[in-house]
Amino acid sequence: MLIDALQCGEFDREAFEALHKGGYTCVTPTLGFWEGTLESMDAIGHWRDMERENSDLIRIVYKADDIRECEKDGKVGILLGYQNTNLLEDRIRFVELFADMGVRVLQLTYNNQNELGGSCYEEEDSGLSRFGREVVREMARAGILVDCSHTGDRTTLHAIEHSPKPIAVTHANPASVFPHKRNRSDDVLHALAETGGVIGCAAYRNITPADACATIRGFAELVARTVEIAGVDHVGIGTDYSYKGDDKFRDWMRKGRWTRSVQYGAGSPKAPGAVAKPEWLPGPERLGDLAGGLKEVGFSDEEVGKIMGGNWLRLYETVFG
Amino acid sequence: MLIDALQCGEFDREAFEALHKGGYTCVTPTLGFWEGTLESMDAIGHWRDMERENSDLIRIVYKADDIRECEKDGKVGILLGYQNTNLLEDRIRFVELFADMGVRVLQLTYNNQNELGGSCYEEEDSGLSRFGREVVREMARAGILVDCSHTGDRTTLHAIEHSPKPIAVTHANPASVFPHKRNRSDDVLHALAETGGVIGCAAYRNITPADACATIRGFAELVARTVEIAGVDHVGIGTDYSYKGDDKFRDWMRKGRWTRSVQYGAGSPKAPGAVAKPEWLPGPERLGDLAGGLKEVGFSDEEVGKIMGGNWLRLYETVFG
Repeated sequence: MLIDALQCGEFDREAFEALHKGGYTCVTPTLGFWEGTLESMDAIGHWRDMERENSDLIRIVYKADDIRECEKDGKVGILLGYQNTNLLEDRIRFVELFADMGVRVLQLTYNNQNELGGSCYEEEDSGLSRFGREVVREMARAGILVDCSHTGDRTTLHAIEHSPKPIAVTHANPASVFPHKRNRSDDVLHALAETGGVIGCAAYRNITPADACATIRGFAELVARTVEIAGVDHVGIGTDYSYKGDDKFRDWMRKGRWTRSVQYGAGSPKAPGAVAKPEWLPGPERLGDLAGGLKEVGFSDEEVGKIMGGNWLRLYETVFG
Repeated sequence: MLIDALQCGEFDREAFEALHKGGYTCVTPTLGFWEGTLESMDAIGHWRDMERENSDLIRIVYKADDIRECEKDGKVGILLGYQNTNLLEDRIRFVELFADMGVRVLQLTYNNQNELGGSCYEEEDSGLSRFGREVVREMARAGILVDCSHTGDRTTLHAIEHSPKPIAVTHANPASVFPHKRNRSDDVLHALAETGGVIGCAAYRNITPADACATIRGFAELVARTVEIAGVDHVGIGTDYSYKGDDKFRDWMRKGRWTRSVQYGAGSPKAPGAVAKPEWLPGPERLGDLAGGLKEVGFSDEEVGKIMGGNWLRLYETVFG
C-alpha cells in the first residue's frame, strides 16, 4: 500500500506509467486551484476520459474498498480532489452534488482568503467563516475530506473544531521543523492528531528541509520528527510532486485571475520559479523506496505500513463512509 | 403501480400530499426548461432539500428497483427530469455527470431548436444534429432516458434511429387523433413502438381532445386509440399536469430569455393563457381512477397494469440499467 495524498501538474499516460511502475496504490491529483463550477466539472470530465483511455493503469476511486481493490489488481487509484472551494460558487447544495460526481477531497482555501476562511499567506487569518462552518459540516455529511494544507493555522484549528469528522493536512510539514507559512504549527498538528486526522509530509523544496530533499534517509528523518509531534497514527505522505508544470501552469497556480502583480507562491524573490525536485525523488517511481528509509530510522514494519498508506486509508474510510 | 411520466409547475408539500393521497408510485417533475448548468444544479439541490423535508411522502428514485420499493413503502418516487438539454452547455462530458447527480430524463429540445435538434414548433425541423447524435448515444451509455415530447417529428425519428436504447415521448398524444404540432405522427409512434419505446398520453387541454378532458371514459378512449397505433406495450400516462403555474411561470416556460414577443406555447391567440384542467382531473388525486375507465373501454387487468405504470417501469429498467 503506497498512498500519496497530493500531487499536481499535468497528468498524462507517461505520469500514469511512472505511478504504476512506482507501485502507487492511490494518489490524489489536483483537479483545480481557482476554477468555478463549470471548469471544475470540465476537469472531472477530463479525468473520466483519462480513466477510460488508461484503464489498464488507473482507476478513479470513490471509497476505501476501491483502493484495496487497486492494491489487489495492481492499478493506481485516483482520488479526485481540488485545492480550493471555488467550485461551490457559494452554494451549500453543491457539496453533495460534487460528492456525487466523485469528488473526495477539497482544500478549504488555496493561497488566498475566500468565502470559507483564511489562507496561510494572508496577513490576517479570519478563521472559519459562517459559510465555512456550514461547508465543513456538509462535507462531513457528504463524505468529502477537508484539507487545510494551504489554509491558515487559525482557520485550520476552527475546521478541526467544527468538523464532525477528522480532517487532513495533505501536503505540508511541521513549521517547527521548517519554518514557512505553508507549514503547520505544532498546535495544529496536535489538534489534528487528537481528532483522528492525518498530515502528509511534503517533498516540495520550498517547504521541505534541504536534508529531507537530499536523501531518502533525510526525508525519513523529517517523517520521524513529524511523528514525534503528531504520533505515528497521524502521519502519511503528500509529496506535492508536480508533473510538467511550465511557467504558464505555475502562473495559473499562483496568480489565477486575481492579480496582475508578480506572485511567488511558496517561493520567494530568491527562488521565484521552478525549484529542483528532491534529489531522491526525481520521478515518482522512487517514492516506494521510502519504506526502507523509514525502517532505517527505526520504524517497525507496522509503523511503516501506516505512514506509507495505512493512515490515509483509515482516514478515507472514516470520512467517505 | 401508478406512474405519471411528466408533470410540471411548482411542487410543494401540498402537491406531495396530493400525489401521496392519489397513490402515485412515481412521477417525473420538470426541473427546468431553459436553464444552464448552474441553475440546473440549483434545481437538483432544491429537490434534494424537498426530499429531506418531505421524506415521509416522497423519495428521489434512481433505478427501477427504487420505484418498486416506493410501491411497497407507499412513497411517491420522484424521477428527476428536464424538458431541455441546455444544462449540458455543449459538453458531452456533462451527460454522465448529470446522471451521477441523479438526472434520469432529458428532453432533447423544448419549444425551440437547440444544438441537438429541431423542435415541433420550428418551421424547419433540422433533424438530429452532429452533437445530438453524440448526446443520444451518451445518454444511453449513462442511463438517461431520451424524451422527444416537444421535439420535432424528424428529430424524434432520428433519435429513435440513433439511440442504442428505446426512447420516450413522455407527454403527447397522437396527432392523428388530435392534430397539433405538439402531438406526434403515427410514423413516429410506430418507430417508437418497434424499438421498445413508450408514449405517455397527455391530459393538457391544448393538446388533448375535448372528450378526453371531459370524462375519465373519454380519456380512456384516447388511450385506446393510442394503443391501436402503438400497441399496448408502448402506451403509458404523462399528464403534463401543472401545479400553481402563474403568469410569471408560464412566461418563463414559453419565453425563457430568448424573445421579447408574445408566445403562446401550445396555446393560441384564442387560448393565450392558463387553460382549465380536465374536468375529471381537477387535482392529481384522481388519476388512479383511470384504471376503472380503462377496464370500461375493454382493457384487461394486465393491460391496465401496463398502461398505468408497467410500461414505464419496463422502459426505465431498460434505460437506467
